[in-house]
Amino acid sequence: MSDAVTIDPTDVEPFLDANRTRRMASYIDFVRIPSVSALPEHAADCRAAADWLSRDLVASGFEHVTVGETGGHPVVYGDWLHADGAPTVIAYGHYDVQPADPLELWESPPFDPILRDNRLIARGAEDNKSCVQMHVRAAEALLQTRGRLPLNLKLLVEGEEESGSAHLDSWLEAHRDLLRADVAVISDTDFFEGNRPALCLGVRGLLQVQIDVTGPDRDLHSGAYGGAVANPIQALAAILDALKGADGRIHIPRFYDDVVDISPAERAALADLPFDEDEFRSSLGVDVLTGEPGYTTLERKTARPTLDANGIWGGFSGVGSKTIIPAEAHAKVSCRLVPEQRPDRILQELGDHVRRITPPGVHVEVIELGSGLPSLTPIDHPATIAAARSIEATFGVAPLFYRAGGSVPVTASFGDLLGLPVVLMGFAPPDSQAHSPNEWMDLANFETGIRTIARYWDELGRLRPEDLRVPS
Amino acid sequence: MSDAVTIDPTDVEPFLDANRTRRMASYIDFVRIPSVSALPEHAADCRAAADWLSRDLVASGFEHVTVGETGGHPVVYGDWLHADGAPTVIAYGHYDVQPADPLELWESPPFDPILRDNRLIARGAEDNKSCVQMHVRAAEALLQTRGRLPLNLKLLVEGEEESGSAHLDSWLEAHRDLLRADVAVISDTDFFEGNRPALCLGVRGLLQVQIDVTGPDRDLHSGAYGGAVANPIQALAAILDALKGADGRIHIPRFYDDVVDISPAERAALADLPFDEDEFRSSLGVDVLTGEPGYTTLERKTARPTLDANGIWGGFSGVGSKTIIPAEAHAKVSCRLVPEQRPDRILQELGDHVRRITPPGVHVEVIELGSGLPSLTPIDHPATIAAARSIEATFGVAPLFYRAGGSVPVTASFGDLLGLPVVLMGFAPPDSQAHSPNEWMDLANFETGIRTIARYWDELGRLRPEDLRVPS
Repeated sequence: MSDAVTIDPTDVEPFLDANRTRRMASYIDFVRIPSVSALPEHAADCRAAADWLSRDLVASGFEHVTVGETGGHPVVYGDWLHADGAPTVIAYGHYDVQPADPLELWESPPFDPILRDNRLIARGAEDNKSCVQMHVRAAEALLQTRGRLPLNLKLLVEGEEESGSAHLDSWLEAHRDLLRADVAVISDTDFFEGNRPALCLGVRGLLQVQIDVTGPDRDLHSGAYGGAVANPIQALAAILDALKGADGRIHIPRFYDDVVDISPAERAALADLPFDEDEFRSSLGVDVLTGEPGYTTLERKTARPTLDANGIWGGFSGVGSKTIIPAEAHAKVSCRLVPEQRPDRILQELGDHVRRITPPGVHVEVIELGSGLPSLTPIDHPATIAAARSIEATFGVAPLFYRAGGSVPVTASFGDLLGLPVVLMGFAPPDSQAHSPNEWMDLANFETGIRTIARYWDELGRLRPEDLRVPS
Repeated sequence: MSDAVTIDPTDVEPFLDANRTRRMASYIDFVRIPSVSALPEHAADCRAAADWLSRDLVASGFEHVTVGETGGHPVVYGDWLHADGAPTVIAYGHYDVQPADPLELWESPPFDPILRDNRLIARGAEDNKSCVQMHVRAAEALLQTRGRLPLNLKLLVEGEEESGSAHLDSWLEAHRDLLRADVAVISDTDFFEGNRPALCLGVRGLLQVQIDVTGPDRDLHSGAYGGAVANPIQALAAILDALKGADGRIHIPRFYDDVVDISPAERAALADLPFDEDEFRSSLGVDVLTGEPGYTTLERKTARPTLDANGIWGGFSGVGSKTIIPAEAHAKVSCRLVPEQRPDRILQELGDHVRRITPPGVHVEVIELGSGLPSLTPIDHPATIAAARSIEATFGVAPLFYRAGGSVPVTASFGDLLGLPVVLMGFAPPDSQAHSPNEWMDLANFETGIRTIARYWDELGRLRPEDLRVPS
């Protein structure tokens, strides 16, 4: 395809111009459905949102539209597959939303969207119904204007993202053939601070464990026994202290073996981010930021692996004191991982290390609580470059590049399970209060984002499928 | 006095023989009063026990008998002070008892004493109404038989021992003149395992603190911030690990400076104790006992200082996982101290050490929760020797010598506040289930103990006051 056809990507403007009111009405209708996936009493609302969306897809020109059963809330699928020879894209979003409580902190009813200051305010107005609507409207505009899309598009919208995507992976595995593609575009990330257009290059992986230390078979009187018996809390403290140094360096053997260094191009991009370290520090109420030597704060919190105790408990924690040697002590510990670290390997190394350093007189167990793979699409991947070009063309500024320090399991689902490069192209203002009361979406981001997506399909449509399938 | 008079200490036998039934009835009447000091609904019972006891003292020949107001439950005091030139002893016990619950585990009503297998079974039958009665009956027997005591005796029985002795120290301080003496005898300790007669030489002191570590001003998402911010749990683990090594050695500077070495005589006595280390170990359900190098298990748990975390908490401890860097983490830590360690000095050193080793990025506070002085009366103190002689003469075996690893605040009250050597001469079987359902007292211990006390007064009466007032 690529060079053969030249398309003016602004050809969709007349259609978009003519349909602004209808577009807003559709978006508001969709947001009005209280599709809270975590609350059983909203199960029917989740299905209503899926049904509503499937009708929207059909009306917009998608084909093979289905509401797919997953065992939980359904997924909505639709495609348009007539661009022979052009790349195939899976675009992902989710129609479910977070619970609305605490209700008393909302300035307007969470499922009665209101417009104010060019914002739509409601639960789900941003996360993630805005992006789902943007994808539908962009495809619709292209189909209505040209009668075709510049590539093959498979739109997949799930209904359990806010409650853990419990059924997504098995549905993806069962539909590998249906989901064959060259690249995945996940639209569920944020712009950078100040609502500056940005592309997220990747997310960190995750390994969550619980460390259980047991000592005597009951709590012992610390007077009668203290000095003669190993104390599980002391043992746990020794273990945790041996996992990570005060300088932020992880002391688990081979922990860093598979870590891919941050590329010079990406280090430069991260260094270019408008990040006020002192403001960041004081916003957290700490005197000093600490972390792995040789890396900047932004690198430490997004592009380098780390380990944190997330919780600890054992013995007496009431008012006053109780002089016991407790029978047991416990900690929850999680590692954030980066490419090419694998949670299963890190679990093995962590467990071996913990067992090796556990002092005599206590027993230890390391239990996995959860894991997720890291994901990174290189800054110079053709799909990344095309996304950046699209954003610059529509928003008027080149996007910033960042990594998210957190973990987005669906990224690994597409990256690892389906073997696709993943572009994280979202349009949410970073202060949109997703998951909080008074969630809002910037309508300029919404409108411009629709143009960005349409233009991105044009950009990707110019590439050959094999150009995209480079390892990410 | 000493050499001038020779008394046959068995002269009390006819009186004791003739009064056995009356003695048991009195003991049972006393135990029948549910004087639970910790429960407000039993306040009147505590006062009833004090009044009952004061009448018993008067009837037994004590003088200056008073029920003294403390602001809490009253103390009962009586004396006999006509042994000019002889030493003056304060004997201490308590009339209050532990709560009886869980009631369903009692085989008979806790305040309806029953006799079975030469045991009296009831709440308080042992702890500590038995010893209080033994003191009254021993003095009564001497007074009835001889018309006088061989020394000056001040009997002090408090009513708040089981609820923390909150008002005792201030009452002692306000009555320093009344309480002038040469030695204190506290009868609230146990015989050794197997009900073998034993003398407790001392108790450990105590310092209880809470360590509060604070980091960011709120829980942070460990994905978004992990790697860039110090983690309070990790910091607390580093602090706890730096307080004590896996070998049981405390790493607080100057911690051991004031520790008095265990004397060779006492080491030999401790080594002679019938102590099966393997049975002890397996009774705790641990694979191995650990502790300070160079000391035996018995020494470690009674005659050497130590440090234990008694509780720890911070962050998320529910089911599953929550990926946060918590804003704070806390631990309760206590030190058991031995002569001549002082809790105030150890608090200072511990606090300084913790502040010195706290890693950057967090704040730390060390708050005292409580303290108690250690106490030790040397194995070769004249009052110890006299006590051992009395026990051997009545029970037929030389007592074992041990130290209690726990802390008995009243020991320090007499030792430090009143400046007296303290002899811990109790008669409780170690498995008497004090504080538990079905508490019992061995009536052979009760009867023989009365003879031991009478004989002990004879033994002490032969000494000059100045012989007793050696530093302990």
